Amino acid sequence: IIRKALTEEKQVSTKTSAVDLVTETDHLVENLIVSALKEKFPSHRFIAEEATAAGSKCILNDSPTWIIDPVDGTCNFVHRFPTVAVSIGFAVKQELEFGVIYHCIEERLYTGRRGQGSYCNGKRLQVSKVTDITKALILTEIGPKRDPDTLKVFLSNMERLLNAQAHGVRVIGSATLALCHLASGAADAYYQFGLHCWDLAAATVIIREAGGVVIDTSGGPLDLMSCRVIAAGTQEMASFIAQEIQTIHYGRDDEN
Amino acid sequence: IIRKALTEEKQVSTKTSAVDLVTETDHLVENLIVSALKEKFPSHRFIAEEATAAGSKCILNDSPTWIIDPVDGTCNFVHRFPTVAVSIGFAVKQELEFGVIYHCIEERLYTGRRGQGSYCNGKRLQVSKVTDITKALILTEIGPKRDPDTLKVFLSNMERLLNAQAHGVRVIGSATLALCHLASGAADAYYQFGLHCWDLAAATVIIREAGGVVIDTSGGPLDLMSCRVIAAGTQEMASFIAQEIQTIHYGRDDEN
Repeated sequence: IIRKALTEEKQVSTKTSAVDLVTETDHLVENLIVSALKEKFPSHRFIAEEATAAGSKCILNDSPTWIIDPVDGTCNFVHRFPTVAVSIGFAVKQELEFGVIYHCIEERLYTGRRGQGSYCNGKRLQVSKVTDITKALILTEIGPKRDPDTLKVFLSNMERLLNAQAHGVRVIGSATLALCHLASGAADAYYQFGLHCWDLAAATVIIREAGGVVIDTSGGPLDLMSCRVIAAGTQEMASFIAQEIQTIHYGRDDEN
Repeated sequence: IIRKALTEEKQVSTKTSAVDLVTETDHLVENLIVSALKEKFPSHRFIAEEATAAGSKCILNDSPTWIIDPVDGTCNFVHRFPTVAVSIGFAVKQELEFGVIYHCIEERLYTGRRGQGSYCNGKRLQVSKVTDITKALILTEIGPKRDPDTLKVFLSNMERLLNAQAHGVRVIGSATLALCHLASGAADAYYQFGLHCWDLAAATVIIREAGGVVIDTSGGPLDLMSCRVIAAGTQEMASFIAQEIQTIHYGRDDEN
């Protein structure tokens, strides 16, 4: 069902481009995925980007819950910048059980299931083992807040990592796909403030099953609803990033 | 010949990954391309990244000259971050005649010939027509200088464009492929200090033939050897970027 939804979604997302069509595509894909899943699993709960935007509560309880981002990289999507994904995670008793991410343009399907590894188009994923920032490629995203003070902290965080002699910092415009690059070992760390549970849910399983760590920006355990994250191939790299970066304050997904 | 070289190159670049192998790959690809072209065009001149690094003069005169970057996105390449390209431009009497860029991982071939349009895998390219920064997606690269003062100017340039309410700024790690995104209309402007003539030569033809402008960061005409560039879909967008950004000083390619 998911694959079918994803295939149909791809046709939509590569055909449309104007700004007002994006929300249509977002809704269309979300409705397609949610209705297909609801039919098969009528008792399950859903947390999805567009439903939340429309006022649905975004609360993770013990029920089996699907956490869905129908189009991640919306700004890219609007510009036809070819880095756009669909992300579907599944949690039971607040524990993430599996995740599926589909890179719509390059037709790469990332999957991860707790205890069973993660894969991209059937190939096992393995994170990087780099612990030294001077050998690291770092990914981040700017986040939705763009006031001058927030931008100063965002840029100062990038400056700290570049001054610590990271190989480079990349901003690709899709948190979900950046996290997939991390899972595949193509980058050594990712951090962001201002992303949502639907950006993170699927990717967290995929990264952990590829041997990586996903934690809070304070260095403590991940809180899926806290709108912030550090992911890395190694605990050492994640802890280093946590020490270096300053917090940008966003609200929580479960507090509206 | 170029296609054959590119095909062979791809096999090399996707197989190797360790740092010391990259230079081997760079050399291997460059030698492959240069020797194939020299055999066919014995009187032509060559400007190529690895030969220049080894001490060859990097001077563009009136002779027919091939300008070659065997592996653009070397840092990405080292990390297996899948954004890596081969770039080959050709100039006669200091005028760029055609360019070919190959995205090794996604197998996209970008071509442009003066007066005859530009294409990606056979599909005609057309730049964005956006003139308003508040509707723009901007691309840049950090550049090789990483001292604290240079980083401050780099980040301050990014800050100015984000404060001007650009939709976003992306850093993908390959100047050549960023310029290809610009040519295809997926982004509205690109600027960089510290890139080289072999990053620019092929992309300049491709962008111009897609209807875009490629100029100096001062707002004046492009100087291929000046290690700096603004490219945009429209003259208005290019001029806006030229007004906003501060110069980062690099030497010239033709002064060693």
